[in-house]
Amino acid sequence: MKTLPAALIQQRCSNNRSENMQKSCAMITSAAGSGARLIVLQELHTGPYFCQQEDPALFDLAEPIPGPSCETLAALAARLGVVIVSSLFERRAPGLYHNTAVVFEQDGSLAGIYRKMHIPDDPGFYEKFYFTPGDLGFTPIKTSVGSLGVLVCWDQWYPEAARLMALAGADLLIYPTAIGWDPADRPEEQERQRDAWITVQRGHAIANGLPLLSVNRVGFEAGTDKPETGILFWGTSFAAGPQGEILKQASKDNEEIVLVDVDLSRTEKVRRIWPFLRDRRIDAYQDILRRYRD
Amino acid sequence: MKTLPAALIQQRCSNNRSENMQKSCAMITSAAGSGARLIVLQELHTGPYFCQQEDPALFDLAEPIPGPSCETLAALAARLGVVIVSSLFERRAPGLYHNTAVVFEQDGSLAGIYRKMHIPDDPGFYEKFYFTPGDLGFTPIKTSVGSLGVLVCWDQWYPEAARLMALAGADLLIYPTAIGWDPADRPEEQERQRDAWITVQRGHAIANGLPLLSVNRVGFEAGTDKPETGILFWGTSFAAGPQGEILKQASKDNEEIVLVDVDLSRTEKVRRIWPFLRDRRIDAYQDILRRYRD
Repeated sequence: MKTLPAALIQQRCSNNRSENMQKSCAMITSAAGSGARLIVLQELHTGPYFCQQEDPALFDLAEPIPGPSCETLAALAARLGVVIVSSLFERRAPGLYHNTAVVFEQDGSLAGIYRKMHIPDDPGFYEKFYFTPGDLGFTPIKTSVGSLGVLVCWDQWYPEAARLMALAGADLLIYPTAIGWDPADRPEEQERQRDAWITVQRGHAIANGLPLLSVNRVGFEAGTDKPETGILFWGTSFAAGPQGEILKQASKDNEEIVLVDVDLSRTEKVRRIWPFLRDRRIDAYQDILRRYRD
Repeated sequence: MKTLPAALIQQRCSNNRSENMQKSCAMITSAAGSGARLIVLQELHTGPYFCQQEDPALFDLAEPIPGPSCETLAALAARLGVVIVSSLFERRAPGLYHNTAVVFEQDGSLAGIYRKMHIPDDPGFYEKFYFTPGDLGFTPIKTSVGSLGVLVCWDQWYPEAARLMALAGADLLIYPTAIGWDPADRPEEQERQRDAWITVQRGHAIANGLPLLSVNRVGFEAGTDKPETGILFWGTSFAAGPQGEILKQASKDNEEIVLVDVDLSRTEKVRRIWPFLRDRRIDAYQDILRRYRD
């Protein structure tokens, strides 16, 4: 048994960005104190989810990588001796921005980055305005605790993304996320959405025989233009094993540090009885590369 | 609302093949009497799951398509005016056999066939001995009740198969199945397996915004060589909607006709709020066609 103690940091965000980062750092420190070696933050954890409106001024929130947030997190990773998966609004060049996951090694070095490949855009989630689609492909980030298949939020609906990470040798699938409800939706629709979000990710764990960590923010964030609207982020950060079994799951409404021991040796055991990679019909998958088969 | 009344036929099988077919026909007739327009049978429904051992004599169970079972089912489809999804052991040529789904139109004509593409092989499921992998690809079968994305059993673990059916315009995903437990497994392992089987399929429904029908056999079938071993088929046939929501689910241990109204118009509604097909990164999926990215 090759156990990796991991932690998921589920938090609320206010408009005070330094307070948000201080809270993240305090929660990371606490998780490390409890023995976590891999610590995953939620998507765009330095502030509120700003994509609720399209405002050119909000590009000011972006920062270079490496940059100020990287410095803080790298120093913390080194001090605590842990691997941290962070999620930042990357300013790559004037007018060129990405939604980027950044992984820090336990010595504080930059292990690697992943630029969100699938960019959503629907009411309240205007990400296509802000984020250029990633150009680094689906490549796991090698670290001292394993090869991390880091993807971001909207990617979690795409089996292709998880599969490509698995085929490239990922030991875990990891999803920093910011997803929530339109408070105007009826409770049964809200529950269907949350359940679908859990289920599709558990499906990726199963189809690839990989453990999975998904970290979501929590709390209500009002719309800037229309404060009566907004997003109620549903938390529910969770860890699943390679048969999709839930190992740990956070609440819908509280800030939480979820500690979970991930048995990395279970992947090979499960793949021996469910050898899905053996039987893939790669001779017949060509049309996956088409937009539509019409 | 464009509602399709469907039925899932979950049955036990004995060694008496004519009795099995009579029972299938009786259940189909009953389902049609209750209003079903689309009726789905379980995998290899004419007899016990013979792949528990490798025995060349068992190829005698195969039949041509069209052939005797097709004649019976085609006549029944015409008499009742329903579409039937059947699953047969196809003898294509001497020494060339397939695990083949056969769809009959409501006038009794052959709407199309699908030859199982992903072939399993693990203890108790020696399918690679019997079934040549399908050579017809992943193509929905057009019928009067919709374009049917018919796949078979082991295919259900492969997101690629479901995706290719969705991209080719399938209105539903349909899985005739024969899956069960090794009775020697512990209850928690059994439950993990069944739950994974449900979850991965619900994941396909979600990722593609499609309703899904999965039909499994039920009951214990002893091993021929070692009657103390065998497979306890777990039933649990179910229908899910395009957000993966369970519409109906059968028991683990009884023969059942599951009647379910499938709202085919929900696919477009769901895909408008979750437009996953819009954002696929087809420029970055090439390595899906590789066995492994090493």
